[in-house]
Amino acid sequence: MEAEHLKTGDLMDVDKNFFSKISDRERAIFEGAITMGALFHQFVGTPVSVESASVLEKSIKEAMELQPCIEEVNVEIDKKILEDTKSEFEYTSLSGEMMNVMIVSKYNHKKAVIRMKFIDELNYPLMFVDDVD
Amino acid sequence: MEAEHLKTGDLMDVDKNFFSKISDRERAIFEGAITMGALFHQFVGTPVSVESASVLEKSIKEAMELQPCIEEVNVEIDKKILEDTKSEFEYTSLSGEMMNVMIVSKYNHKKAVIRMKFIDELNYPLMFVDDVD
Amino acid sequence: MEAEHLKTGDLMDVDKNFFSKISDRERAIFEGAITMGALFHQFVGTPVSVESASVLEKSIKEAMELQPCIEEVNVEIDKKILEDTKSEFEYTSLSGEMMNVMIVSKYNHKKAVIRMKFIDELNYPLMFVDDVD
Amino acid sequence: MEAEHLKTGDLMDVDKNFFSKISDRERAIFEGAITMGALFHQFVGTPVSVESASVLEKSIKEAMELQPCIEEVNVEIDKKILEDTKSEFEYTSLSGEMMNVMIVSKYNHKKAVIRMKFIDELNYPLMFVDDVD
Repeated sequence: MEAEHLKTGDLMDVDKNFFSKISDRERAIFEGAITMGALFHQFVGTPVSVESASVLEKSIKEAMELQPCIEEVNVEIDKKILEDTKSEFEYTSLSGEMMNVMIVSKYNHKKAVIRMKFIDELNYPLMFVDDVD
Repeated sequence: MEAEHLKTGDLMDVDKNFFSKISDRERAIFEGAITMGALFHQFVGTPVSVESASVLEKSIKEAMELQPCIEEVNVEIDKKILEDTKSEFEYTSLSGEMMNVMIVSKYNHKKAVIRMKFIDELNYPLMFVDDVD
Repeated sequence: MEAEHLKTGDLMDVDKNFFSKISDRERAIFEGAITMGALFHQFVGTPVSVESASVLEKSIKEAMELQPCIEEVNVEIDKKILEDTKSEFEYTSLSGEMMNVMIVSKYNHKKAVIRMKFIDELNYPLMFVDDVD
Repeated sequence: MEAEHLKTGDLMDVDKNFFSKISDRERAIFEGAITMGALFHQFVGTPVSVESASVLEKSIKEAMELQPCIEEVNVEIDKKILEDTKSEFEYTSLSGEMMNVMIVSKYNHKKAVIRMKFIDELNYPLMFVDDVD
């Protein structure tokens, strides 16, 4: 699995060494998609209640905006689902059903808007490309 | 693995049905320990920087204080380690080396103070009982 | 939050330095509880299907048996729930509803059996002490 | 954040409703990137030793190959790093430093090879596009 170009040359030049085969637009899509997959799998399972949801939304946003090429992350946790699914202990675990996420990624002048939304007909938190330059 | 008593009786009486074999003090230790294990494995890997650390500390605290019998959670993320270990992209992944956590759990009148701290000599983020009534 | 005893003395003597306030029985409960909290929050969210469940069960077992004082871990993922909750893409995310876990922890001659099981009446994956010496 | 097209029409037609703005090649890149981000953040923190590494590699592979458009996932956990970084308890937490991952994603006839590898010069587990049709 070792690609030769990883071992030589100016590794600081990340774009040239690791992304020479894709366009700016594809890079924006790539980085936004990584961050969406990362966001879901990092935070699913976190204890959450109606009261704690806004702090969790903010910390997910701040964490994921650190990743390369990410311009903006917005997370909405559905308060009605939180209320409807809470346990006897008055909280639940964060899950795909209750998350609505938008990520804007940008590379050079190309921008992608990636979203995740639970689609009832698929029974699945679908990640998709909502818009791209 | 099915214990018979799970299927019959008054399941609402959690304490009687599931914790009859342990003391109040042991229950406090049990609940604090669960929350410490949960905290570490939920949040390790989260992207974090010096700037985002305080929001992450707050959201970990609020999430883990939701769990049963948890009175207080305090998380300190070491800013010096964050600075020393950051990548070229100016952030790193949350790890055991940089976390100092205290959890206070209480059941009836018994209280336990559980801590996690990286112990260099063990090369390990040790979870331990710092105090208990 | 810095306890003085962390900084001096023989840190290799973990039991003496960090667990002097609890009994052997309490230590067994403590270590089993940490591992149960850890297990849940590490693996919840993992993509899983009827076909992949047995490998996932085995890797959860092997990972969590590495933790201190853990004698045995057994994980059952409910195949019927997997089948009933799968998405259009033929898999789902591992969740508390579908897990039945038993952990045996031991310290000196004291043994604890910790379990996690989803309790419908609580709408909650309850972690509890099933048995202890 | 609600896009109108999510609420009407034939939601079963995922490709038409959610991916109409990107090419087949971009879709392959998108799906591979999601899975790489997901893989890292799901499994980082898992207890692992030289002995348990191969089962963990296999379960990561089987879990992530379930995701849409994923043809193949290969994970190598570096045994030397495991040995060098293990704690007094003879294991460590899975981290980006020790993982070498390749993901092949395919949509229609377009294929992307996504990789993750720790790049010392960046002090970062870089995810990149190694090849694409």
